[in-house]
Amino acid sequence: MKKLINKVDDVVVESLAGMQAAHGDLVRLHPSVKGVLRADAPNPKVAVISGGGSGHEPLHGGFVGFGMLDAACPGEVFTSPTPDQMLEAAKAVQGGKGVLFIVKNYTGDVMNFQMAADMLAAEGIPVAQVVVNDDVAVQDSLYTAGRRGVGGTVLIEKIVGALAELGAPLEEVKQVCEKCNAQVRSMGMALTSCAVPAAGKPTFELGEDEFELGIGIHGEPGRQRLKMKTAREIVESMAEVIVNDLPFQKGDEVLAFVNGMGGTPLMELYLVYNDLVRFLNGKGIQVARNLVGNYITSLEMQGCSITLLKLDSQLKALWDYPVHTPALRWGK
Amino acid sequence: MKKLINKVDDVVVESLAGMQAAHGDLVRLHPSVKGVLRADAPNPKVAVISGGGSGHEPLHGGFVGFGMLDAACPGEVFTSPTPDQMLEAAKAVQGGKGVLFIVKNYTGDVMNFQMAADMLAAEGIPVAQVVVNDDVAVQDSLYTAGRRGVGGTVLIEKIVGALAELGAPLEEVKQVCEKCNAQVRSMGMALTSCAVPAAGKPTFELGEDEFELGIGIHGEPGRQRLKMKTAREIVESMAEVIVNDLPFQKGDEVLAFVNGMGGTPLMELYLVYNDLVRFLNGKGIQVARNLVGNYITSLEMQGCSITLLKLDSQLKALWDYPVHTPALRWGK
Repeated sequence: MKKLINKVDDVVVESLAGMQAAHGDLVRLHPSVKGVLRADAPNPKVAVISGGGSGHEPLHGGFVGFGMLDAACPGEVFTSPTPDQMLEAAKAVQGGKGVLFIVKNYTGDVMNFQMAADMLAAEGIPVAQVVVNDDVAVQDSLYTAGRRGVGGTVLIEKIVGALAELGAPLEEVKQVCEKCNAQVRSMGMALTSCAVPAAGKPTFELGEDEFELGIGIHGEPGRQRLKMKTAREIVESMAEVIVNDLPFQKGDEVLAFVNGMGGTPLMELYLVYNDLVRFLNGKGIQVARNLVGNYITSLEMQGCSITLLKLDSQLKALWDYPVHTPALRWGK
Repeated sequence: MKKLINKVDDVVVESLAGMQAAHGDLVRLHPSVKGVLRADAPNPKVAVISGGGSGHEPLHGGFVGFGMLDAACPGEVFTSPTPDQMLEAAKAVQGGKGVLFIVKNYTGDVMNFQMAADMLAAEGIPVAQVVVNDDVAVQDSLYTAGRRGVGGTVLIEKIVGALAELGAPLEEVKQVCEKCNAQVRSMGMALTSCAVPAAGKPTFELGEDEFELGIGIHGEPGRQRLKMKTAREIVESMAEVIVNDLPFQKGDEVLAFVNGMGGTPLMELYLVYNDLVRFLNGKGIQVARNLVGNYITSLEMQGCSITLLKLDSQLKALWDYPVHTPALRWGK
């Protein structure tokens, strides 16, 4: 395992320092806890906050800025951040209209955000939480009771961030967040494992002719290990499950998101997107918006995930609303 | 070697189709040759065109759009496009003010762009060319007489594209392109090899404790194979050569670009950027602009490159000018 790092213990802190050096116009680091704060916070709006283990960059720190997150709380690699990080980040960015925590469904994250919410509420700051659980691959998993939170989180953070930017009250922001979560489904696959810096070796082993269908973003086991197939076959096997789960139906408009796990070339992601559009068109499902690239990764893992979000006019408008963060930017 | 592809022969075409499906508002494919054209071309401005082997995505197709390229000509993976691709793309997007070819210095690209320029000129279309050769790693290389064209190409395409968008005449666009090339220097390194789909195996082998300093973007040999070092040591060994080559001097303002080779996590690229800023500050060189991410890649290669561009007020203004392409977007 070779990585561009200095000391294993300093990976997250040094990476955050680099991000702040590159994007100081958008984000600043919390002075005492690991937290990426919107540079111009607090603002008189609902503060939208997320967080989770590091190693999924640009999620979440790369999504801090106008029209998306007010703060991100990064843990160590693949490790939940702590309640005090969440509490301090929330206090630093909240502007009196309350706080929404967007939580990916992993046991540690859920527990720690709950504790932070309790502490915030005790200080008289209104707080709501939504747990994202969009992964259709498996019901329970290595770090999860229920479905895992994966690619849908990116789309939810963008849409909910826009709504908060527009001045919606906490109750409405929470409600739209729940609506998005109810309408989004994802599934991932891996060609290779990642290696956590502190572990120093691959999280799992895959044969030279195998892939893992339904992988989690920490390398958690998926549904099946299968012999290698074509991109089209792989896309169909993932998209079929996703479409049938909601279900997405003929005539639906969707946002189709092809996400790279970190080590797969963009060339292959566009090829996958091409096969996905063909599949969806065959079902009479219209791709009205899209996102293709590395947005919720698993270190250097090779593979991809597919996320479909059922759209309506409200969600389309919020998706199109200007955003200005290190990793997503348009309209500004 | 596992890849998300269907047939080896269709990789480029299917990837381009996916890109067009995702970004049809910005780009369209040429109807008869492999070419990514700006959707609203031709425009009454100098047409800025680049191209080269595929496998470096988002370069160049991802940079087609407002304020950057008018067309990109992709060859097969790591293979030069043909003169007829360049000719047809140029004819499709040129709007009467002439054409600038931005050519990375590889023997095949240089020869084919020269032939295309001759054919364009024979049809009475004004044409100029600039060959980018910013790689300080080696003088001659596997596919190159003289220095290779690498990361500087991305910065040059952005800056020159802005100038063309502003209506500058061909002679001035060429002149600023040459100025940028004279003021930009790069160097790369690899932790792992990439594998060309048609070859089906890694281009080269590196030991589990080795990295290659000065690697090319096709896996061409660099300066040295060295035992693994810290990110800080690697950054210093690359940045020292880059700074001394121009040389960049105390008081200079630069654009610092940390580029991922395709398979390296963003977390590590920010960490590298952090070490680069520290190094440059120590030399009294000020980072006035930056770019961190995967912009000129080598399929799934793990590694990075560092590019420094010496800035002045003109180049800063052109860098800041709005751009709207699949891979770079701001101000619009």
